[in-house]
Amino acid sequence: MTIAPGSARNSASDTKLPAFFEQDREAVDAFLDRLLPPQGTQPASIHEAMRYSVLAGGKRIRPILCLETARIFASGSIVDAALYPAFAMEFIHTYSLIHDDLPALDNDDFRRGKPTSHKKFGDAIAILAGDALLTKAFETIAAAPVDPARTVAMVSEISSAAGTVNGMVAGQVADIESENKQIAPEMLEYIHRSKTAALIRASVTSGALCAGAKPEDVARLRSFGEKIGWAFQVTDDILDVEESSAALGKTAGKDIAQHKATYPAIHGLERSHEIARDLANRAIAELTLYGAKADPLRDIAEFLILRRA
Amino acid sequence: MTIAPGSARNSASDTKLPAFFEQDREAVDAFLDRLLPPQGTQPASIHEAMRYSVLAGGKRIRPILCLETARIFASGSIVDAALYPAFAMEFIHTYSLIHDDLPALDNDDFRRGKPTSHKKFGDAIAILAGDALLTKAFETIAAAPVDPARTVAMVSEISSAAGTVNGMVAGQVADIESENKQIAPEMLEYIHRSKTAALIRASVTSGALCAGAKPEDVARLRSFGEKIGWAFQVTDDILDVEESSAALGKTAGKDIAQHKATYPAIHGLERSHEIARDLANRAIAELTLYGAKADPLRDIAEFLILRRA
Repeated sequence: MTIAPGSARNSASDTKLPAFFEQDREAVDAFLDRLLPPQGTQPASIHEAMRYSVLAGGKRIRPILCLETARIFASGSIVDAALYPAFAMEFIHTYSLIHDDLPALDNDDFRRGKPTSHKKFGDAIAILAGDALLTKAFETIAAAPVDPARTVAMVSEISSAAGTVNGMVAGQVADIESENKQIAPEMLEYIHRSKTAALIRASVTSGALCAGAKPEDVARLRSFGEKIGWAFQVTDDILDVEESSAALGKTAGKDIAQHKATYPAIHGLERSHEIARDLANRAIAELTLYGAKADPLRDIAEFLILRRA
Repeated sequence: MTIAPGSARNSASDTKLPAFFEQDREAVDAFLDRLLPPQGTQPASIHEAMRYSVLAGGKRIRPILCLETARIFASGSIVDAALYPAFAMEFIHTYSLIHDDLPALDNDDFRRGKPTSHKKFGDAIAILAGDALLTKAFETIAAAPVDPARTVAMVSEISSAAGTVNGMVAGQVADIESENKQIAPEMLEYIHRSKTAALIRASVTSGALCAGAKPEDVARLRSFGEKIGWAFQVTDDILDVEESSAALGKTAGKDIAQHKATYPAIHGLERSHEIARDLANRAIAELTLYGAKADPLRDIAEFLILRRA
């Protein structure tokens, strides 16, 4: 399967979430709710803030990628066990949004159509809620009922992807330091791959590791995850130009207003669409060996570049 | 061994670091330097900020507790392996200081006699450096060359101690929310035990877990760690009143200025000394079974309440 050029704008149905996606999302939401300390647990403010941001919705792409990757290599209780790294990825993603939105960083007032954490709870609680979710992510991985060697491999993979050497924090730093500057296309690629692709890649690989995939399979899935993660961020850049704030649930046109380097700014819109499509096709090519079992991952890859929000 | 009442003020030699402590500290400092990405690793700013705070000195109490606890139950390569959780504890401690010092939280300008991270690098990099060190902590634990089951137990123990249910973040939240308020002695106890004692307790237990200690031994060491951690924070409160800023390397008298609840404020100085001494003695009582092997832990317990900085 490849995604034909131009389909991004022509095929309305492709921009909807696949059905399994909705089912996974409901399972993820229900489990997330149970996993977080209940409303009212002391200190109440921090748990309210954690629940507020985690349960604000979102596409749950990272946990769904983790679960659907695990399903290629395992079934039953092992796929259930993959819920643990799946949630961990959502906690890490949410922590990064909370901290990214802070006045000291992107200074954003809205996220998913609601006030950002610091607008609602104040800067101190927002900083601590982010810290708490990052901590909770590793507590959650450690609780996965699988062979401990797999758990250790997941902790290693995920912490590295969230870190400062080609990981998420590296990308955030490079992003901040590139504001209001002319940057080379290579630097923009570095930012997107580290800030966004690393965590999406780890969502995929942690699913494979949890399910006991062989090293050569993990390597193939790692390449798939890296490419769709990169395509995802290129698409985000495109949507910031093409869509309204209402559709996105956050401030549109913000990249331009903040003089952020983006794919459309450097490569133009048309070429940016091509780059995203090419990355998604190359990602899908990594899945050939897995036949129909990998169809959900193919659907997700397609959705990620065809979505309108 | 018990610590006699009054010795806190009478015995000057007891306030010096034990000799093994200095040796451990040098080993820890050298290893920390090698473990962090080298100066100049891109993005340079974040790695400079991480190195700045981690290598700023400090007593290294948490890693030393981890190592000395491991030595009760193991030797050779297993004690070397305990360097990994030991560093992880120092990374988590350092992240908490960086975030705690931020303008949105305690708004402190000096730490260990040097400008705080945000004063030197700005708020954005300070927030991200804290995030990065917390992430690095779990990457480091995962690298420990021990049975993966022990690693998973350490991740679980440490993440829980750093979290929001009776863990470090819970204590920070309760501390912030208690400023400028009259609080009950029970709330002050809750703050000290969660904000400080939980992480010191996990330093001890992670050393025991790394060394393969039996559950009943881990439980005894957990009780030891909890009590010395609590005593440590009571002593911190006392030092804030009794010592100068120069001696502490941070702003003295700050607790009073910020209307923070402290042991001296609630119980008076004399009674606070008694409480710290009593906790240390009860902690030391947990070590009876381990004979001379536990002498370093006894020395640390003694040092923690007799120190003057």
